[in-house]
Amino acid sequence: MDYKKRSQEVLWLPFTQMKVYDEEPMVIESGQGLKLRDTDGNEYFDANSSVWLNALGHHNNELNQAIIDQLDQIAHSSTLGMANIPAIKLADKLVQLTPTGLDRVFYSDSGATAMEIAMKIAFQYWLNTGITTKKRFITMQNGYHGDTIGAMSVGDIDIYHKIYEPLLFQNFVAPYPNVYHHESHDAKKTKQDCLEKLENILRVHHDEICGLTIEPLMQGAAGMIDMPIGFLSGVRELCSKYNILMIADEVAVGFGRTGKILACTHENVVPDILAAGKMLTGGYLPLAITMVSETIYQAFYDDYDEMKTLFHGHSYTGNQLGCAVALKNLELYEKYNILDNVTENTLFMRNELQQLYDLKIVGDIRQVGYMVGIELVKNKKERQAYDANLRVAWRATLIMRKLGLLTRPLGDTIAFLPPLISTKEEIRQMIAIIKEGIYHVMEEMNHEE
Amino acid sequence: MDYKKRSQEVLWLPFTQMKVYDEEPMVIESGQGLKLRDTDGNEYFDANSSVWLNALGHHNNELNQAIIDQLDQIAHSSTLGMANIPAIKLADKLVQLTPTGLDRVFYSDSGATAMEIAMKIAFQYWLNTGITTKKRFITMQNGYHGDTIGAMSVGDIDIYHKIYEPLLFQNFVAPYPNVYHHESHDAKKTKQDCLEKLENILRVHHDEICGLTIEPLMQGAAGMIDMPIGFLSGVRELCSKYNILMIADEVAVGFGRTGKILACTHENVVPDILAAGKMLTGGYLPLAITMVSETIYQAFYDDYDEMKTLFHGHSYTGNQLGCAVALKNLELYEKYNILDNVTENTLFMRNELQQLYDLKIVGDIRQVGYMVGIELVKNKKERQAYDANLRVAWRATLIMRKLGLLTRPLGDTIAFLPPLISTKEEIRQMIAIIKEGIYHVMEEMNHEE
Ligand SMILES: Cc1ncc(COP(=O)(O)O)c(C=O)c1O
Ligand SMILES: Cc1ncc(COP(=O)(O)O)c(C=O)c1O
Repeated sequence: MDYKKRSQEVLWLPFTQMKVYDEEPMVIESGQGLKLRDTDGNEYFDANSSVWLNALGHHNNELNQAIIDQLDQIAHSSTLGMANIPAIKLADKLVQLTPTGLDRVFYSDSGATAMEIAMKIAFQYWLNTGITTKKRFITMQNGYHGDTIGAMSVGDIDIYHKIYEPLLFQNFVAPYPNVYHHESHDAKKTKQDCLEKLENILRVHHDEICGLTIEPLMQGAAGMIDMPIGFLSGVRELCSKYNILMIADEVAVGFGRTGKILACTHENVVPDILAAGKMLTGGYLPLAITMVSETIYQAFYDDYDEMKTLFHGHSYTGNQLGCAVALKNLELYEKYNILDNVTENTLFMRNELQQLYDLKIVGDIRQVGYMVGIELVKNKKERQAYDANLRVAWRATLIMRKLGLLTRPLGDTIAFLPPLISTKEEIRQMIAIIKEGIYHVMEEMNHEE
Repeated sequence: MDYKKRSQEVLWLPFTQMKVYDEEPMVIESGQGLKLRDTDGNEYFDANSSVWLNALGHHNNELNQAIIDQLDQIAHSSTLGMANIPAIKLADKLVQLTPTGLDRVFYSDSGATAMEIAMKIAFQYWLNTGITTKKRFITMQNGYHGDTIGAMSVGDIDIYHKIYEPLLFQNFVAPYPNVYHHESHDAKKTKQDCLEKLENILRVHHDEICGLTIEPLMQGAAGMIDMPIGFLSGVRELCSKYNILMIADEVAVGFGRTGKILACTHENVVPDILAAGKMLTGGYLPLAITMVSETIYQAFYDDYDEMKTLFHGHSYTGNQLGCAVALKNLELYEKYNILDNVTENTLFMRNELQQLYDLKIVGDIRQVGYMVGIELVKNKKERQAYDANLRVAWRATLIMRKLGLLTRPLGDTIAFLPPLISTKEEIRQMIAIIKEGIYHVMEEMNHEE
């Protein structure tokens, strides 16, 4: 089979304008460690961890073996009304690894569904406890929580969500503390300003609001926008003060990306509801979780007739293969001190990234652990963006691809999220390619002016 | 680890009142063929195929090997802007196995997301082609399409969806041809009546309607309600006549459940958009598909700037392991003539099921292929239901569990959907247990009266 040709004939790829794909189709064949290999025999650094989810590298023997061992028992049985061993073992591990207050695990298959479940729990929680006014959500400006209707509803990225507006429910939206583009350009002032505006909404509307959704420490899809220190804990305080369930969406930041199991832990924050997925299985299989406090769980626990049950489930909820590989992934984090590796190399990465500022179109570099956004600008001094149609970051990533590195742009920002096992030397090599890619696109832009 | 105890401490199971689970917890340990084995060493017939998805039995060596082989290449890489070999091979197979008009494959992880994608495509299709009025959906009474906000919105099962109403978008709802409970009790009249009512809505509102959602041949979650012959093709005609995209949700009925790859094929119907999942991977891994015609695909195909792209994706879209096992599953259907087995045994099953009518609480038995609903009633003559709080079907399934057979009730209906490899002898054994279970619950009801 001519894979490239057939891919152009039968596939419709996610988040992809297929006309653009058709210009330079690409088919991945295999992987090893940090590297992906395509059907032409080219090798690439997987510098965005296959969209933020690979942790321990591709073709990891120990993860492979975990799946093979589980296959020997069973691949899947339903968890509607019954449990299975890997689902229990993984939940046990998750409850141990996360702070008290995250006591129960509800499984699903994607980050979007983990968020849908989180929202349904927050919504139903108040009804189950007899409070009937709290039916709306408050969300963060430019937030992203996935692409199903519910997840899009609490999202706020116009290019993805706007046209579906007639199908989406409406929310309160609080400003997000984007320091680089805040009028103050100052972390503390930006934080103060945004917390105040959030409180202004909550003061008036808290009786209507069931839950708040937030991406802790770093908004991903918005363009890797980190929040000022203290903002997350400030939000936690306001949620408690105004009796609103805090839903932390750690789909992108969770399971080691920031150097800790949960990003919330950096600020000693315990959300009421947690959604996570992606790196949970090390980048192997679709599996996501929604975790809640025992208090929330108990609000749904009653005689059947009381109709407090959460009627939600998916065909493969609690899939044994996914749970087995996730459990092994978390065990390997401990065996190989993966989080220490991330924490230790974070500073090295920060220093290496500084050299990108030499390039006059690099406006801002934002980093939390192994999660980096490099924002390209037309005018550094004015922090002025390029015309969106120029797709400058996208062109930069195309060049990087030719240089042997894969990543994806987010608007004018280049995402750099290497697998957690990346060493200093590999980080150095990847950043060198990224620099070269940005340099080339800068030259192109100069020519076109 | 005491698995049962730990499951009670850390899990929140889907579609499960955990107080009820706590009374009789159960943990599946392994599976072989049609049988599941729990941690107490009990064995059970998996008589609902782990909620309608197991096709070729548990612990199938050839499916296991397909996963092991794929692990040797790569478990997962992103399909955002690039493809991979198993995703292409599977899409190629799917396009071959399905009728012309289902030409492209968009992957996701669950039936609910496959439907969300189908809806977003139907909605955006008209906008992309310059028609801005068609923004609403028409759905079937008592339909079920999954539990995310969008999927619930086009669903119509009060017990699951009602409380979330403030979050759901509103639709037109057409009556579903439930012959047993239709005033006529006659298949042809029921069909006629429902098609007329559907046309009445479409005649007035077709300009506002982008798509129609329907479960072909048999509504699943509603209680295994089959439609009269000719209804589906009638709906297809009306959709064409009134320029509405027909979205067939074959998540439950697709991939062999009815004896054909697609249920639509029984009536030579080609939907504009198809959603499927569940049995696609033989019950091994979460994978779902949304297929569309080339015409629809082309409406999204343009220069990037034209903003016609479908911005939808999930972390694990096009997962290699899932695609590899799905491809093998479909190959094994051919190798072992699985669909012929279903078709051949369907009549045998129908005859065996007749004996259940001896029990005075068995009101109606509905069957399409290996998909059966047995509706229990208080009064057969009046077709009168039991008080819902008695949960008569649920109690029957609890008894069956003690007799070595697992299935799930849907309201007052017992679902019987054995794996596709079930032989005549196994079908006979399973129906015998089902009969015994219903008999016992009937005795219980008599006592309580
Ligand atoms: C007809 C139909 N559509 C959609 C779904 C939802 O699929 P999933 O549970 O995989 O999200 C189901 C699940 O039973 C179904 O029966
Ligand atoms: C913060 C966040 N939430 C939710 C999602 C959606 O997850 P999925 O793509 O697995 O549905 C993503 C995906 O990138 C994400 O970054």
